[in-house]
Amino acid sequence: MEVTRTLARYVVNAEFKDVPAPVRLEGTRSILNWLGCAVGACRHEAVDCALDALGPFSGTREATILGRPEKVDILLASLLNGISSHVFDFDDTHLRTIIHPSGPVASALFPLAERIKMTGAELLHAFILGVEVECRIGNAVYPEHYDVGWHITGSTGVFGAAAAAGKILKLDEQQMTWALGIAGTQSSGFREMFGTHCKSFHPGSAAKNGLASALLAQKNFTSSNQVIEAKRGFANVMSTRRNYDEITQNLGKTFEVSINSYKPFACGIVIHPAIDACVQLKKENGLSGAEVEKVELTVASLVLELTGKRTPQVGLEGKFSVFHSCAVALLFGAAGEKEYSDAMVRDPKVVALRDKVDAAIDKKLRDDEVHARVTLKDGRILTKYIEHAIGSKEVPMNDAQLDAKFHVLADDILGAAQAGRLLAMTRGIESLKDASGICRLSVPGN
Amino acid sequence: MEVTRTLARYVVNAEFKDVPAPVRLEGTRSILNWLGCAVGACRHEAVDCALDALGPFSGTREATILGRPEKVDILLASLLNGISSHVFDFDDTHLRTIIHPSGPVASALFPLAERIKMTGAELLHAFILGVEVECRIGNAVYPEHYDVGWHITGSTGVFGAAAAAGKILKLDEQQMTWALGIAGTQSSGFREMFGTHCKSFHPGSAAKNGLASALLAQKNFTSSNQVIEAKRGFANVMSTRRNYDEITQNLGKTFEVSINSYKPFACGIVIHPAIDACVQLKKENGLSGAEVEKVELTVASLVLELTGKRTPQVGLEGKFSVFHSCAVALLFGAAGEKEYSDAMVRDPKVVALRDKVDAAIDKKLRDDEVHARVTLKDGRILTKYIEHAIGSKEVPMNDAQLDAKFHVLADDILGAAQAGRLLAMTRGIESLKDASGICRLSVPGN
Repeated sequence: MEVTRTLARYVVNAEFKDVPAPVRLEGTRSILNWLGCAVGACRHEAVDCALDALGPFSGTREATILGRPEKVDILLASLLNGISSHVFDFDDTHLRTIIHPSGPVASALFPLAERIKMTGAELLHAFILGVEVECRIGNAVYPEHYDVGWHITGSTGVFGAAAAAGKILKLDEQQMTWALGIAGTQSSGFREMFGTHCKSFHPGSAAKNGLASALLAQKNFTSSNQVIEAKRGFANVMSTRRNYDEITQNLGKTFEVSINSYKPFACGIVIHPAIDACVQLKKENGLSGAEVEKVELTVASLVLELTGKRTPQVGLEGKFSVFHSCAVALLFGAAGEKEYSDAMVRDPKVVALRDKVDAAIDKKLRDDEVHARVTLKDGRILTKYIEHAIGSKEVPMNDAQLDAKFHVLADDILGAAQAGRLLAMTRGIESLKDASGICRLSVPGN
Repeated sequence: MEVTRTLARYVVNAEFKDVPAPVRLEGTRSILNWLGCAVGACRHEAVDCALDALGPFSGTREATILGRPEKVDILLASLLNGISSHVFDFDDTHLRTIIHPSGPVASALFPLAERIKMTGAELLHAFILGVEVECRIGNAVYPEHYDVGWHITGSTGVFGAAAAAGKILKLDEQQMTWALGIAGTQSSGFREMFGTHCKSFHPGSAAKNGLASALLAQKNFTSSNQVIEAKRGFANVMSTRRNYDEITQNLGKTFEVSINSYKPFACGIVIHPAIDACVQLKKENGLSGAEVEKVELTVASLVLELTGKRTPQVGLEGKFSVFHSCAVALLFGAAGEKEYSDAMVRDPKVVALRDKVDAAIDKKLRDDEVHARVTLKDGRILTKYIEHAIGSKEVPMNDAQLDAKFHVLADDILGAAQAGRLLAMTRGIESLKDASGICRLSVPGN
């Protein structure tokens, strides 16, 4: 069974005209959501640190760091855009695998568009194919691959970035197979890094290494032809489960990007049902937070496994605290990036309410279900059951909500007017003559 | 138990004066052997491909690609030197783990020496520490980590490169801990890649990524403080065995570089006893090869299992033929890279003698033992028993042999005179005021 080669052949031969309109639309929405995150976080200290450390080694400064005036070479830009697009934990999620699919793929493609002229349609097609590759590989090894400790966004994302860049570089079937091989042998990234700058480094590194893999394969740098399926290749070495049918069946018939989802809240998706419940309770009952006596959550076990941090000390840790998240949701009716600042996790009002939140596990609950029960000081008891959180496949964010999220993220960097123009241009990516126009318009003052 | 931090603290606080003279000497011998390999292979197609693909994205061209006139930025130079130093399969071996320790570490340090002025002693010390870090981490997870499919030279080498570069950058304990974390979360490389360009990409990538990790940590890019020992960190995710005592015990008392070994022959280590026997018989008896009637070897079973190829067609296959190897050993008294060229395996004289070589298995023999019996056309019978092959721990290559190997590798690139000057400079690294002089002298005409 030729798994890697089958996937490579599909990417090489795929044509944009065969991609259904709804798939193209979801690809566009994914890019828009990714772009908002990248622009919004472009001044995050993780980006500053990485630019400070690696900028001095940049080659030809032809690629935009989205949202910033500095330019760097396309490989470094891939890394930095990958970092900024993920560092708010606000990017998209392929719910079957909890891969954040856009980061590794789009972060490689936009810098490449500033070196090799491509239309918006070409970029969008390569993006859809890259997402297809990483998510199918993820489907084949999830959840065991993730459970053992791999940050699946990085470990599969590098394949997606290589495939997408390779499509733009017009690699032939053998070169595309090598590109996947060179990418795969760089597959890496531990979940242990969650809560540190390295978490967002993973999609950045996947973007950069995937792009480099395609460039190397273009010059006939060789690798194994069976990186995915070989005895000592990706699936066997990095997972105890593998189902290659997930990779090779229905290629060109189903599209993983069409089940992509977008976060309304700037934290891990497993807390979203709880936040959704608290936001709804606050809005429906006009709560200020001060009247709350206690909050009792009943959650799926993954919630406490991933986000059970009781006493976060910095903003980033707050994202791994269902307790902090519910406190800000009840206090402010939101859980955006602002609600995860360092100051916010130390705010006495937030801390006081956080300490009143408890969570119990019910193993029968799905990951996106929650029961919330809020007891008020006056004795009233408010309850809310969330069957599927906002942002889930069942209750997706609509276009207006995505646009509003884009503005919340980008307005601080670009101002509302330019952010609006960038939004409109990105919505129209399919008819853009030069995809790199999006990069230029992401820079303040352009 | 703080494994990662303990290792980081050791590297940060270590002082060169505490490194015993024999350890320094073995470090110097390791660097010399690595340098010969890198210079000798600097024009290999794997290096050409990688330079062609990634050279256009080079930053400030301040670092030497060893043996070549082109310069590139220090990160790309680390990658390329790592590739060239390993691509002949002629570099050093830490026999306990079969890590090739110098590639990832030295390939990062020399480019760095062209950016940050350091003495030879400073470079040598950082090198010894980098080797210590990667080999100790390897000791903790070998052989399970290797058996499952990780190319241990790359997967542990990235830690070594980060530690060595971090020592030069004078990282503090926290930064060094982060450097190991950033490096570890990039740990990667499948054994599936053996036989392709990607095999030598692994030490190159480890060098580049380790160096980048140290640069990032210097700017306070954060990672986990427990990358090695955390539940979802290196040892648990990438191995089914882990013994942290191997990492934390006797730091500063034992030195892994002191058990490093060097290959006298450019092929898999299991044929070395047979080649050693043939080389000795040739030299002791002044054989030309023409007078040989037949060669009868008695070998360990692994020899024919791994290197039993009767009629190799290309040079690379010759490395897996004990018959070809013994033929060139009797004809030329050597089995270096030249004796494994495509032309050499097709040379009628070599083929004729190869067909006279036979090998029988004796299951009682250890892998590094051999009995050779050569019958001459005049009826004389010559025999040689090898208890341990040259290059083994028991019969290490002496300085004269290492120097001869260096010349065989470097003379074609530099000419014998310049190669001799480079050799002398490297032997004297401990007293070099500016370690980067070695880089400059590795370039033809300098």
